[in-house]
Amino acid sequence: MAMEFVHVTNEQRVLFGRGQVTRHLRDEVDRIGARKPLLIASARDSGLVERMTAVLPPVVRIDEVRQHVPIENAERARLVARESGADVLIAVGGGSATGLAKAIALTGGQPIIAVPTTYSGSEGTDMWGLTENGTKTTGIDSAVLPVSVIYDADLAATLPIGLAVASGLNALAHCVDALWAPRADPINQALALEATRALSAALRDIAGDSPDIDGEEAAAGRETAFYGTYLSAVAFASAGSGLHHKICHVLGGTFDMPHAQTHAVVLPYVLALNAPKLPALSGRLAEVLGHRVDDRSGAPHAVQALEALRTDVAAPRSLAALGLRADDIPEAVGRVVAIAPPSNPAPVTSESIDALLRAAWAGTPATELRPSV
Amino acid sequence: MAMEFVHVTNEQRVLFGRGQVTRHLRDEVDRIGARKPLLIASARDSGLVERMTAVLPPVVRIDEVRQHVPIENAERARLVARESGADVLIAVGGGSATGLAKAIALTGGQPIIAVPTTYSGSEGTDMWGLTENGTKTTGIDSAVLPVSVIYDADLAATLPIGLAVASGLNALAHCVDALWAPRADPINQALALEATRALSAALRDIAGDSPDIDGEEAAAGRETAFYGTYLSAVAFASAGSGLHHKICHVLGGTFDMPHAQTHAVVLPYVLALNAPKLPALSGRLAEVLGHRVDDRSGAPHAVQALEALRTDVAAPRSLAALGLRADDIPEAVGRVVAIAPPSNPAPVTSESIDALLRAAWAGTPATELRPSV
Repeated sequence: MAMEFVHVTNEQRVLFGRGQVTRHLRDEVDRIGARKPLLIASARDSGLVERMTAVLPPVVRIDEVRQHVPIENAERARLVARESGADVLIAVGGGSATGLAKAIALTGGQPIIAVPTTYSGSEGTDMWGLTENGTKTTGIDSAVLPVSVIYDADLAATLPIGLAVASGLNALAHCVDALWAPRADPINQALALEATRALSAALRDIAGDSPDIDGEEAAAGRETAFYGTYLSAVAFASAGSGLHHKICHVLGGTFDMPHAQTHAVVLPYVLALNAPKLPALSGRLAEVLGHRVDDRSGAPHAVQALEALRTDVAAPRSLAALGLRADDIPEAVGRVVAIAPPSNPAPVTSESIDALLRAAWAGTPATELRPSV
Repeated sequence: MAMEFVHVTNEQRVLFGRGQVTRHLRDEVDRIGARKPLLIASARDSGLVERMTAVLPPVVRIDEVRQHVPIENAERARLVARESGADVLIAVGGGSATGLAKAIALTGGQPIIAVPTTYSGSEGTDMWGLTENGTKTTGIDSAVLPVSVIYDADLAATLPIGLAVASGLNALAHCVDALWAPRADPINQALALEATRALSAALRDIAGDSPDIDGEEAAAGRETAFYGTYLSAVAFASAGSGLHHKICHVLGGTFDMPHAQTHAVVLPYVLALNAPKLPALSGRLAEVLGHRVDDRSGAPHAVQALEALRTDVAAPRSLAALGLRADDIPEAVGRVVAIAPPSNPAPVTSESIDALLRAAWAGTPATELRPSV
């Protein structure tokens, strides 16, 4: 395959270290030379926040953190940031906390330090999102890329296993979608495959044979999950949103479906649609997913390997269980088809998306989805 | 293994496209908004330079390009850059051309656009080097990182196969040394392993079964080699110089040995020294190198796989053949031991470096080097 692409690498610092979050945070604030931190953290993370504010008292704290960043929340937060004169935004939490920091930085220009507690990956991208009147708008701006990301595996320890799995599968969705997204190239594909390797191993450690959330294996799994998350986000930011993210964007923005779980459910169906068009990449994907396949199945190996992983980690299985109504499918199909990337490997038609969403709604195994070619 | 590291990613644009060098070059100069390009290109690349100057006339051209960037050359080039008022430096060629551009940018601050014609990888790093009175000084400065890198596989087509192999093995040395260099971390190790995968395949395509330099296989090999080169350089810049680069730095700076060929010869001996200390990484390395091993050999699989690759591509085999005198070895040993990274996995002693250099000087197979532990 001829290589024709422009690959842009974003500048960023990323710090790993278990139990080192407060030290790393102080170092990074000092490095930036900031004196007035604004802390974004939901009430859920109160123990962690107490430890942080002890070493680094913020000038103001925002704890109203909502999914998909409603525009009203963003406006309130921007006002708070302006009035406090904050010169650095510290976002502690999942994608929603980082997303709110990005909404502030988008208009205010303050640097962001992200301290992730989930595997959303928002901290590794220059993509922002805002939701207004049921429609989520997203964009790209270098001002919203966190200057530093601090990963401390202990911070993900309070995440219940079910949420950890959904969140990790959301990170995995960044990897898989990066393989065929509009700006996909060999560099972001390589990062995506390495991230997939890390995430599949990590998810099996977190949710697999040993359900001991306090055990060393689970702790190592959380660390590896952060590592995979980071590379998945970098690959995703570089490759852009593929069909999978367009579908989840519609389901999240218009039908208020839960973000990570929706990604976890939809992914194998999009893979089943596209894998037959990308046999070489799909083969490499199957390998890094753990390659447990059954040659009697007619499904692509990557789809089988992903479904095997989903079984191992008890992934959420259907959009119906997540609250989508069957009656919503036609509107969702229309919205997805309208924004689907023209470069998607498999043709995107009302028929193919309808079949895909109905299978995801019902939770039919993705290995049984037979896209018409 | 616990993950404790700070990883810094540098911002850079990289453009791939066969036959597209002039279009990409014009685009990047426009993007920067520069109007007075200074072109660095050795007389060897005259055909290419004619095509470039036709679309983008430089205000001045420098064609005095020498290995290891002697300080006198750097000073002359800096003067030319100042007097011409150049606002962008276009470096066409191998590591020496890029190195000269870096020497100018280090004091002048002009942005660099690199157009590589070899697999030196200098274009992907923020490292500079200058040689004065037989000693090469190197340093790191963000001012010398090229803002854009333009790869056009056709530009490497005039490189004789022997030089292409030595240059590709130099890139491979960036990968292998990045596995244990002072700032090695899982991110740059993953990039290094992906680069190794690409470079071993590419070198076999370029030099292997089909020696048809004009064939499609060789052209695809050159493209893949540039891809591997780029990732090798990014990994190397991030991980820093390991023992291998310190050894080659001494051999190049003090004994004026040819850069790429020296790397090609020394690499397997450093790997033989370190591989026993890093069994897991060494196993992954053996895999991406092509994993052709003989279990009756006592040598680590990675060393066997590297030696198999070197045989396939008819790599240069000894420092003696490259002109090093046996009498020079004691001085080289002293200089290497003085600057060896304390973090090198295997102990670095006068004895271990003496054994390593004597084996590399004689061209003894690296599989026979048995480091005392």
